[in-house]
Amino acid sequence: MTQTLNKAVVIFSGGMDSTALLTNIVRSKGSSNVEAVNFHYGSKHNRAERRAAKAVAQELDVHLNLIDLDFMHMFKSDLLQGGGDIPQGHYEDESMKATVVPCRNMIMIAIAAGYAESIGANAVYLGSHSGDHAIYPDCRPEFNLPMGATVAAATDGKVELLMPFETLTKADLVVAGARIKTPFQLTWSCYEGREQQCGKCGTCVERIEAFMEADYIDPVKYEIKIDWGKRKPYYLAL
Amino acid sequence: MTQTLNKAVVIFSGGMDSTALLTNIVRSKGSSNVEAVNFHYGSKHNRAERRAAKAVAQELDVHLNLIDLDFMHMFKSDLLQGGGDIPQGHYEDESMKATVVPCRNMIMIAIAAGYAESIGANAVYLGSHSGDHAIYPDCRPEFNLPMGATVAAATDGKVELLMPFETLTKADLVVAGARIKTPFQLTWSCYEGREQQCGKCGTCVERIEAFMEADYIDPVKYEIKIDWGKRKPYYLAL
Repeated sequence: MTQTLNKAVVIFSGGMDSTALLTNIVRSKGSSNVEAVNFHYGSKHNRAERRAAKAVAQELDVHLNLIDLDFMHMFKSDLLQGGGDIPQGHYEDESMKATVVPCRNMIMIAIAAGYAESIGANAVYLGSHSGDHAIYPDCRPEFNLPMGATVAAATDGKVELLMPFETLTKADLVVAGARIKTPFQLTWSCYEGREQQCGKCGTCVERIEAFMEADYIDPVKYEIKIDWGKRKPYYLAL
Repeated sequence: MTQTLNKAVVIFSGGMDSTALLTNIVRSKGSSNVEAVNFHYGSKHNRAERRAAKAVAQELDVHLNLIDLDFMHMFKSDLLQGGGDIPQGHYEDESMKATVVPCRNMIMIAIAAGYAESIGANAVYLGSHSGDHAIYPDCRPEFNLPMGATVAAATDGKVELLMPFETLTKADLVVAGARIKTPFQLTWSCYEGREQQCGKCGTCVERIEAFMEADYIDPVKYEIKIDWGKRKPYYLAL
């Protein structure tokens, strides 16, 4: 007996969280039942992210849709090209608020839901986790709940919004991701869009701390030297 | 004492409903406190709509933002270029369902909310009315309610979604629009994107019936002859 699985659409940046998510869905549904959607919204690190997204999608054998949101040059955020400098330091710091891109998740979810309905997929997945809440309004449960209801209503119940990592920490994602051989070595997180990750911006600091807490050495290279202590290399998990 | 009014963003197609809405907001806030956003999503009638949108915005002296959603060629709908023929007949007919563009309103609202937050506007307006409900899931109260909550959450309470026509009929909009001299003569409704409106597709039929019910002769030209009976010309209202 062959079983037909429902198709899923995964919002996929090429970063750690959405790569852990995509790997997860591919392992359970098979890559032919999953499509990834990558958005370019004019951020300073979108080019590096997209390069990573292509590498991961190829590794996981997943169809990757590339969507360019050209209109977002009209939006205001230091994360976007033309915005101010990327602040260094901790993610939760007040200064990182300038990197919030207004309504970014709502826009990506709305588009992914419309695409999902168009291809007959019944679910849109987003990799929001509990560490995102502090500065990003559209990563919080107060947003996720009405957003899910909105997607269901807009698609007449055909498409469901799922955020399976909502209550997990980023360190949890490293641990869980390692178990299913998530290709973290191909991902990109840094808000600066250079050749190597800076190791100093909020998202780099958050990533490094997550790997440390999970007791792994991050497999990506950094511009600065990181003291990983006695942690084990991530490639041992692969 | 000068009073500073909050800015508003109006989702504006160049059709009847959003023109009545835009006129309304301009009359109460003044045109310098209002921005219109017009979306091109690859429909067969977007070019005609945009022409109308430009004419109306100029007439009302409102700043018009043009946003192209190129990715929507990936979506499936007979309303879009490359889709099937536009069905003729009544809007509520089952056949018109093929013209639903998946999640169109959710996408437009999400983008308009992000833009509103970027320019410091505190409200996004959409001209959905009660006649839209039958075939479009994202025009119904079941959608409008969670969508409003989602916009508020995504913007940390900075932007509110308003649909002041939600309980009105299209005929109500003609009557109310006439009172504030809405330039209906510049608007475009027809789903076919030809030189004149066809008079036969669902949206033409709905428009004609609305003007008839409001006891006016529609000021736009149609390809076919319409029997307006003893109704009065709309230009008498202007």
